[in-house]
Parts: sequence; C-alpha cells; structure tokens
Amino acid sequence: MELEKEIAWKITPDEKHRQMVEKVVSDLMKRIRTTITDYEIPLEPRLVGSVAKDTYLPYPDIDIFIMFPPFIERKDLEKIGLDIGKKVLNGEQRYAEHPYIHGQIGGFEVDLVPCYKVLDPCNIKSAVDRTPFHTEFIKKHLKEEQKVEVRLLKQFMKGIGVYGAEAKIQGFSGYLVELLILKYSTFISTIHAASSWKFGETLWLENRSESQFKDPLIFYDPVDPFRNVASPVSVDSFARFIYASREYIARKSERFFFPRKRKQWKIKEIRKCIEKRGTSILVVAFNRPEIVDDDLYPQIRKTEEGIANLLREHDFVIIDKNSCANKRILIAFELESINLPFAKRHSGPPMWIDHSKRFLERWRGGRGFSEPFIDGGRLVVIAKREYCHALSLIEEKIKCTSLGKDFRELPFRTYSGKMVFRREFKGILTMLLDKRMPWEI
Amino acid sequence: MELEKEIAWKITPDEKHRQMVEKVVSDLMKRIRTTITDYEIPLEPRLVGSVAKDTYLPYPDIDIFIMFPPFIERKDLEKIGLDIGKKVLNGEQRYAEHPYIHGQIGGFEVDLVPCYKVLDPCNIKSAVDRTPFHTEFIKKHLKEEQKVEVRLLKQFMKGIGVYGAEAKIQGFSGYLVELLILKYSTFISTIHAASSWKFGETLWLENRSESQFKDPLIFYDPVDPFRNVASPVSVDSFARFIYASREYIARKSERFFFPRKRKQWKIKEIRKCIEKRGTSILVVAFNRPEIVDDDLYPQIRKTEEGIANLLREHDFVIIDKNSCANKRILIAFELESINLPFAKRHSGPPMWIDHSKRFLERWRGGRGFSEPFIDGGRLVVIAKREYCHALSLIEEKIKCTSLGKDFRELPFRTYSGKMVFRREFKGILTMLLDKRMPWEI
Repeated sequence: MELEKEIAWKITPDEKHRQMVEKVVSDLMKRIRTTITDYEIPLEPRLVGSVAKDTYLPYPDIDIFIMFPPFIERKDLEKIGLDIGKKVLNGEQRYAEHPYIHGQIGGFEVDLVPCYKVLDPCNIKSAVDRTPFHTEFIKKHLKEEQKVEVRLLKQFMKGIGVYGAEAKIQGFSGYLVELLILKYSTFISTIHAASSWKFGETLWLENRSESQFKDPLIFYDPVDPFRNVASPVSVDSFARFIYASREYIARKSERFFFPRKRKQWKIKEIRKCIEKRGTSILVVAFNRPEIVDDDLYPQIRKTEEGIANLLREHDFVIIDKNSCANKRILIAFELESINLPFAKRHSGPPMWIDHSKRFLERWRGGRGFSEPFIDGGRLVVIAKREYCHALSLIEEKIKCTSLGKDFRELPFRTYSGKMVFRREFKGILTMLLDKRMPWEI
Repeated sequence: MELEKEIAWKITPDEKHRQMVEKVVSDLMKRIRTTITDYEIPLEPRLVGSVAKDTYLPYPDIDIFIMFPPFIERKDLEKIGLDIGKKVLNGEQRYAEHPYIHGQIGGFEVDLVPCYKVLDPCNIKSAVDRTPFHTEFIKKHLKEEQKVEVRLLKQFMKGIGVYGAEAKIQGFSGYLVELLILKYSTFISTIHAASSWKFGETLWLENRSESQFKDPLIFYDPVDPFRNVASPVSVDSFARFIYASREYIARKSERFFFPRKRKQWKIKEIRKCIEKRGTSILVVAFNRPEIVDDDLYPQIRKTEEGIANLLREHDFVIIDKNSCANKRILIAFELESINLPFAKRHSGPPMWIDHSKRFLERWRGGRGFSEPFIDGGRLVVIAKREYCHALSLIEEKIKCTSLGKDFRELPFRTYSGKMVFRREFKGILTMLLDKRMPWEI
C-alpha cells in the first residue's frame, strides 16, 4: 500500500491548490450571477463535474452549467447561453452535440455550458441536462474517504491512456470512475475486479433496466438506467485497462500512474527497423479540417478504416496502421509489400452453375493473362490486376471508399519508399513501430 | 450431322482393320487354349472389353480374361494367371488391384487378366470379376446402330482429354460411355444432356440402389446397382465434359475429336510471359519412382497438394500449379512472390480470454519485431516469419507435409528464378501458362 499512498499524496490537491480553485470558481459564479440579471428569464448557474464533487486531479477543468427553464426554446437557449458565456469568459465557442463557451482563467480551463433544468433525468431535453444529476448523485453517495480512491483510479487511467470519454481517447469518464469506486469501494479492488472482466461485463449499483447494450463494458446509470455510462469505452480502452490491471497486480509501479514520455525515434532508427522487417510504409497526409476534436477523431478513424478496406479489397496485406492529428492528419500503414504482381488468380463459379456462361463471356479471348480454365470443377482465370501499387490505388480510388465526411473533399498526399523518412512523420512512425505500453517505457 | 458422319467414317474400323484385330484375337485365344491344358483346373479364356463389344476405336487394347473357378485360392489364381500370361505373351507383369500380364502383338496392346468366374456380379471375389458381366450386358443391349454413337462419344472424350478411368486421366471408362449411349441413344443427345448436367447428376437404366454416392457424376451399374460406374470421373473431368458439350453445341468442329497438338513454348516465350505477369515460378523435381501409372498419379496429386498446403500455411499465394511425369516428376507452382517480408502480423486471443496470458508470456520481451499490443480488443504482435523464401521452406519442411508414400524418401531438387528456364521444364511450364482447352488450340 506504500506506493498508492505516495501516489495519493502527489495527486490530492493541497490546501493552497484548493483555495486557487475555489477562488476561480467563486469569481466566475459571481460574474455569471451579475450577467444573468440582464435577461428576463429565471437562470441558475451550477458548478458541476469533478470540482463540484471534490474528486478532481490538480488543475481540473472547471465546468459551470447555466440552467434554463424547460419552456425556453432550444435556439434561444443556445443564443443566450453563448451570449452569457462570451460576456463572462471572453472565450471561444465550441460545439459538442451542443454549443458552449470554452475559456481559460487563472491557468484553469473553463467550460460554460447552457442546459435545461429538468425534474427527471429520464426526460432530458439536451444531452448535457443529465450532468447536474450525476453531480448530485455522486455528492450524495460518495463517502469522504472514497474520494482518494477516485483520484487514484483516475490517475491510473490517465497514466495508461484510457481516461476520458472524449472521441480522442474513447475511455472512462470521470463519472464512470466514481461509479466504479461506489461499486468496488477502493482503487485496488477495482483493479482486481477489472483484471478478470470479460467482454460485455455488466455492472450496476442498485437498479438496472432491461436494456441490452452491446458495448464491451456496461454500467447502468443510477440516475437513468436506460443509459450505459460506459458506452464511450472502446474495446481497445477496455482491453488496455484489463491488461494494465493485471500487470499492476503482478508488479506495482509508479509508471502506471506517471509513465515516462515515449522518445521519438530518429529517422535512421526508423529506416533501420523497416529494413529489418522487409515491409513497406505508406502514409496518407490530409490537410487538417477545421473541426473540433470530438468531430475530428471519429472521422480520422473512419477514414483510416476506409483506406484500409480499399487496400484489403485490392489484396494489399496490412501489417499495422495508425493515425494522428498534427498540423496535417497523418494515416500510416505498414504493408507486407507496397506493390503486387500484375497477375492474380480470379476464381469463378463451378461449371454447372448458370453464372458460368457469363464468366466465360467476360473472360474469353485474351481479356486476362490466360484463357479460363477448370480447377476443382470451378472456372478460373489468371486476371490482370487493376492496381499493382498501393499509392496509385489510393490516389485514384480514395473517393470510392467511405471516408470521414469532412475528408471527402480534402487535399491529400501519399508517401512511400524513401519519401516517408521525413521529420514530420517521426511521431506517427514511432507510434507505429514502438508498441510498448505506456507503463513499459 | 455432316461433321459427325465424317468423324464416324474416320473412326469406325474398316474391314481390313477388323480382320487384323480378329486375327490377333483368334491367334491369342488359340495359344491360350493350348496353354491352359497344362493345368488341371477348368479354365476359360474370355474376350472382353471394347473388342468383344465391337465398340472399339482403331488400334484398340485387346483384353482377354482367364476365368478361374471360385474354389481356387487367390494366390494360386495370381500365380497360374501370371504363368499363363507369360507363356502366351512373353510380356511384362503389371499390377492394378491385381497382377496381370501386358504385352504387344502385331501392333496391338494386349492385357491377359486372371479373374474368377462368379455367378452373380454382386458376389465378386476380385475387382475385375465384374468385367465379363459388363461385356455381356453391353453385347446384349447395345443395338447395332448405336455402336457408331459409342465410337463418336469415345472419340469426343478422347479429344477433349476425359476418356479413360485410369488414375492419369480420371475420366470416363469405355463401359460408362456405352451406358451413356444406352441411356441417351445417340452421341448428340448425350452431348445435349451433358451440357446441363449439375454436380451430383444421377443416372441409371432400369434399377438403382439406395446407395448415396458423393461423386460429381453417378451412373448406377446395371449389373451391380451398389456400384457407381462413374466413380473414377474427377470433378475436373466432369466439368470439362460439360464445358466441351456446351461449346460443341455452340460451334461444332472436328477439333473436339481431333485437337491439334499443343506446341511447346520456347524458353524465351516462357520467360517473357512470366515477366509480364510479375510472378515467380517454383519447380520441385523428384526422381521418378518405379511404380505403375495407376499408383504414380494419385501420389503425384497428393504430393502436389501437400506442397501447396505447406506453401499456403506459410502465406505464399499460389496463382496456379501443375504437375507431370517425365524422366523426373515435375511439380510447378506459379506464386505471387517467391519471398515474403521478414515481419508478419500475428493475431492472438482477445484480452479477456484466459489464453491471453500464455500469448503474453510467449511474445513479451523482444521475441517478435514488436511487443504485444492491442487491436480491436485482441492481442497482436509483429512476429518474425519463419520462412521468407519458398525454396528454403520446401527444402526444410517438405517432410512435415503429406506426400505420396513413395515420394517421402525420394531425392528432389527445387528450382526458382532463372533456374526454371531450362529445356526439361518447357513442357510443364507450357502447360502452366497455356490454358487453352484442347479444342481451342
């Protein structure tokens, strides 16, 4: 337990830090209260999230909701909400499902979010309306001594890279961490439980609905049992948390909470590694579209998967792939080979199937490298491959595969061979080749 | 009908040819009758096969059976049978299921085969005992005017390469051809019927058994309905006969009966063709084992399939393959590539399966090109490929795959790259690259 105590000591905000946070919050609330009097609507600012619940890690995001009565129309809520936000924060407008204002005050990230004040969390009018109920639920049920357990679990998840429900991470939200501690009481018992979780692991506190979720992890929301709090957790985050839990049990280490930074490989190291493997690298680089991360990352994943499908459909063997968003969006593939022979075997129907006549019409008379022949009763032909090089395939056919919607018209460039050994690609190629887990670095 | 009349005229033995055949047969029968008096057993020589049935094509094999009473022991039948055969023919001993003597007389191939004279073909004591019943059945039921139809169908099958039940061809026996004419009456109506045969096509004359055969073509033997006369017909011969029938209906031509000889390609042509395709050729050459064709060809096929499986299991992509028996047994493969990169993706179990622990133990700590990582919830590692070149794979691992039994200890050599462009391989490589059907040449 020594290690966890030490970590707890490091991550629990001290009195001075608490005072800083409280000062920022009370200043903000004051400013908001003054501002809302300009409007002839009963508005109520509400501190929510980890600061309200006292489960935050140092330098938390400060989330303040401005609660509107339900009779206000959606477009007015948005307009007035942003208006107040701008006056209070002088920040920038952001969109999740729902617009809000993001700004910085005294070194803290602040979100000012308009929402509806509803009576029952099952009758919400916008996606964020549930949050105040979550905050109340945790404030009511989480015991004082469990707060440190929440903080430990958050830091652990942060260290291994699965903390956060946002699209970039697809991991565990703060609220889910709190529910896990309510469920399992302590950090270490959560870790022990997770080490033997199975796909579809289903958890709840008191009441659960009959809803059937298909997610890797299911935690019925105590304030709305028709919702799965763990729905943002991707199968990879789920698996990584299981893996890290097992490893932590086997060999406790600070590295799980505070991993070392992964060092970027030098161009020479990357080149040597690829040479040893005898494989080919292909990078597709898109200009970065101007959209928020929660829109961007799902689109990157879709684009990555779309290009991967295009490659697979044309017989390229993908060993691994990865993507990242820098100045440009980079999607990298490691292929067994960047080119394929001109000839490929193309199997048709068995001779006794009607369709065989069409196959013969199509392929007879020198359309392929061979005339159609019979093998195992089936018609077969040695056909000419349409695309022998992965670059020309992508350059000519990328529009025929499914891409993120903002990527469809985006300028892009493709790189292979020596062209991939450039400074800009050091990061993504390091990620592609160095597969150590964060705690193994 | 003009074409078929013309063909019929060419392939029906004329009076002079008939007299030659009859002379050889009567001389042989005389010699046999004289010889068998040396033995104190009632023996009976019997002319069987196409000569007996008058359905033969010019220069037929002459088959004479020496019928033994059933009380003679098998080993005595074999001993005496071979003894008589040698005295009469001075030929060489051959084995099918069953030893017999093969020789040549007056330009004709002759088989002298000992068999048991049984009363009922369902109670045969050796595989060949059924043949005299087949001969009697056809002599009794085939009408005079149908003999020319049998000859046309035989010549057609010969031309397209599916005539003969022997292991080398895996096609239609003479008896099966005769049954098809009894079934469909004429050559042309057989062709029309065959053009729409389906896999598992089931035919019979009057009586059929309940036996369920799984062959591509089933023809219940009228003298033993528990036997499928078409069981030697491979799926490729079956499909080829369907194909040729359709083509013949669409465009009648002498070429189906008398195809042109396929010209061997020149080394230069072979090399050019391979270069255009961008593929790799691999040839495995075995010393020829000293066994009869009916033993040899199944073993060649088994060996070809065994090597193909070995290649596939190690990720080599086979475009096409072929084999032939010359001075050496040659098995040729056209591969997408003769070598593969050193690295390969190796997928393990999902993280939540117990087996994941064994996977991690096995692969952690630099056993592969990467540490194990998670993709789609599964453990994955970039592994080192065991065999990157098809030649080294075959040279080192051929014993680990299933080969024909006489091939297991046989010396062999492998060839790839420029080494395959040699005179000895012209035949097999022509077969591999020139896929025209016999009638298309």
